[in-house]
Amino acid sequence: MIDNEKKKVGIIGSGSFGIAIANLICKNRDVLIYSRKNENVDSINHNHKVKEYALDPKIIATNDASFFAASCELIFPIVPSEHFRKVIKEFAPYLRPYHFMVHGTKGLDLINIDLNNSKKYTITRSNIATMSEVILQETSVLRVGCLSGPNLASEILKGLPTATVVASRFDEVIDMSQNVLNSNRFHVFGTYEILGAEIAGALKNVIAMGSGILDGHGLGKNIQAMLITRGLNEMIKIGNALGASNRAFLGTAGIGDLIATATSTNSRNYTFGLRIAKGENIDEIKKSMTEFAEGIRTLQISMGLIKTYNIHAPIFVMLHKVIFEGYPLEKAIDYLMEFPYDVDVDFL
Amino acid sequence: MIDNEKKKVGIIGSGSFGIAIANLICKNRDVLIYSRKNENVDSINHNHKVKEYALDPKIIATNDASFFAASCELIFPIVPSEHFRKVIKEFAPYLRPYHFMVHGTKGLDLINIDLNNSKKYTITRSNIATMSEVILQETSVLRVGCLSGPNLASEILKGLPTATVVASRFDEVIDMSQNVLNSNRFHVFGTYEILGAEIAGALKNVIAMGSGILDGHGLGKNIQAMLITRGLNEMIKIGNALGASNRAFLGTAGIGDLIATATSTNSRNYTFGLRIAKGENIDEIKKSMTEFAEGIRTLQISMGLIKTYNIHAPIFVMLHKVIFEGYPLEKAIDYLMEFPYDVDVDFL
Repeated sequence: MIDNEKKKVGIIGSGSFGIAIANLICKNRDVLIYSRKNENVDSINHNHKVKEYALDPKIIATNDASFFAASCELIFPIVPSEHFRKVIKEFAPYLRPYHFMVHGTKGLDLINIDLNNSKKYTITRSNIATMSEVILQETSVLRVGCLSGPNLASEILKGLPTATVVASRFDEVIDMSQNVLNSNRFHVFGTYEILGAEIAGALKNVIAMGSGILDGHGLGKNIQAMLITRGLNEMIKIGNALGASNRAFLGTAGIGDLIATATSTNSRNYTFGLRIAKGENIDEIKKSMTEFAEGIRTLQISMGLIKTYNIHAPIFVMLHKVIFEGYPLEKAIDYLMEFPYDVDVDFL
Repeated sequence: MIDNEKKKVGIIGSGSFGIAIANLICKNRDVLIYSRKNENVDSINHNHKVKEYALDPKIIATNDASFFAASCELIFPIVPSEHFRKVIKEFAPYLRPYHFMVHGTKGLDLINIDLNNSKKYTITRSNIATMSEVILQETSVLRVGCLSGPNLASEILKGLPTATVVASRFDEVIDMSQNVLNSNRFHVFGTYEILGAEIAGALKNVIAMGSGILDGHGLGKNIQAMLITRGLNEMIKIGNALGASNRAFLGTAGIGDLIATATSTNSRNYTFGLRIAKGENIDEIKKSMTEFAEGIRTLQISMGLIKTYNIHAPIFVMLHKVIFEGYPLEKAIDYLMEFPYDVDVDFL
């Protein structure tokens, strides 16, 4: 193994979360950011900022994938799920089995299905890949992990404290990630439940959109708390259908991330829901957002899975109707209020 | 059994939550409120209000316990935990085995221990009674239950939608409660896990105080979400020590109630935490609150249990230090950040 004390830690992507993680890691290790855009690379190297985000002056950037891969052993890819496979394919020629890859992307990859071109798609487990599965499919990297938790980038960038979890089947991935990320403002848990953590991280964005919609209609904290509680039940059922166990959903990557995202106006997906509630349409909102709300895509994918596997997920179904079909929120709430739930907690 | 269609539904207590529940039930059944204070009884019967809370004009009140008990079959006692046993004792002579009692109090009863007079108390399970246990100990009533969930009274009073759970070992208690409470604004789940629901409802107030403290220091949504996630773990451990299973903690009465209370400034316990963060002392805050923050008492009781049963609950311990011993919040957060947690989810 290469002497990781001397190696840089790599971040692929220069979105807000990537920058937040870079700023955390640079307190413990040298950090190298990969960005495809020359203007971002220049801005990081000369002005120590990207868009409105300030970076520690020690952080440097490159747009040379070969140099990046040769300089880093531990790499955090943090790019939107829609482009994740393409980006990983570009890196594949330069990646080796000694690389560790811990992604921070909260979405799912879709195989052989175009959400924009087909209304009547059927989605099965074989059409889905989590981000770590994409890495395993496209590269020679073996030691994969994911980073998940209540990690609103805007707060981490301000130096506010929080925790995260590194999920990986490899102790060495968890240990190394903890070493580079840990600080007295950022506690890093470890877990082996990578599939659950990845699916929870993706699905929670759907509930966050719903929470924003409720807020936009002024419906209060009680019903938001119910949405989160029952939404968690539905997330677990969808996760179970994809092969994940309950455990990750009940920890930092599940409840933790869900609560932060579904109660904060600093969350992109929450804000998306707020704007839907104000009557804007999806395309308008998409155009004006600097970073994509992953929940929109994840909701479409979830609907396909719910149909294929006959999953009881009335909240996901109603959110799909409200967001994509203009179904009135009042009617959706009436439907959910009268839904004949069998029991309060049905995943145990 | 008495014909419950013709019987009134009784509410003991005229605090904000009691009034909120009365307003919900009166859409389905006649409601009789018991209040000891003549001024409240008069105000309800003549002005249809108590303090700032408006009541449906159909709701009537009495201060005659005997008349109250004879008029009602299903009774909801909703009084502070500190006075609960005393109130139930006063009703005991008039209660019969045909009465159903479903309480809405989120606290614990303490037996043979005075929190104010002894600093070095030891608290065991035998010093604790849940509110339903108090009813069973003091009266001939057998069919007990509790009402719990994300039920901020201020929101229910405004007609905002939410859900609740009735926990009881008796199907007939769950069924009758659902019949009188259900509406298209208020979904009533049922569960048999009464002990878990009662303990979760009490303990969540401690986490709500902590969440208010974090908010008062401007520490953001991420760390609040972590507090709730890890706090839930600790609540479950304390619950397990008292004989409760995990299930109720993961549903409406657990996560649901916890999230609403720990993210809303409309919660008394949250507000208490906010004011502690601003530097006020406990006695000042107590004096100026119209309704008692149950979490203060529950935190004291919890500390006794944590010591007795050697429970790993660092958040509860730190909150006790911050609230009762003036320990600096920064130090408490540092301690929790560096706490050697073994795993992310340790209750499964």
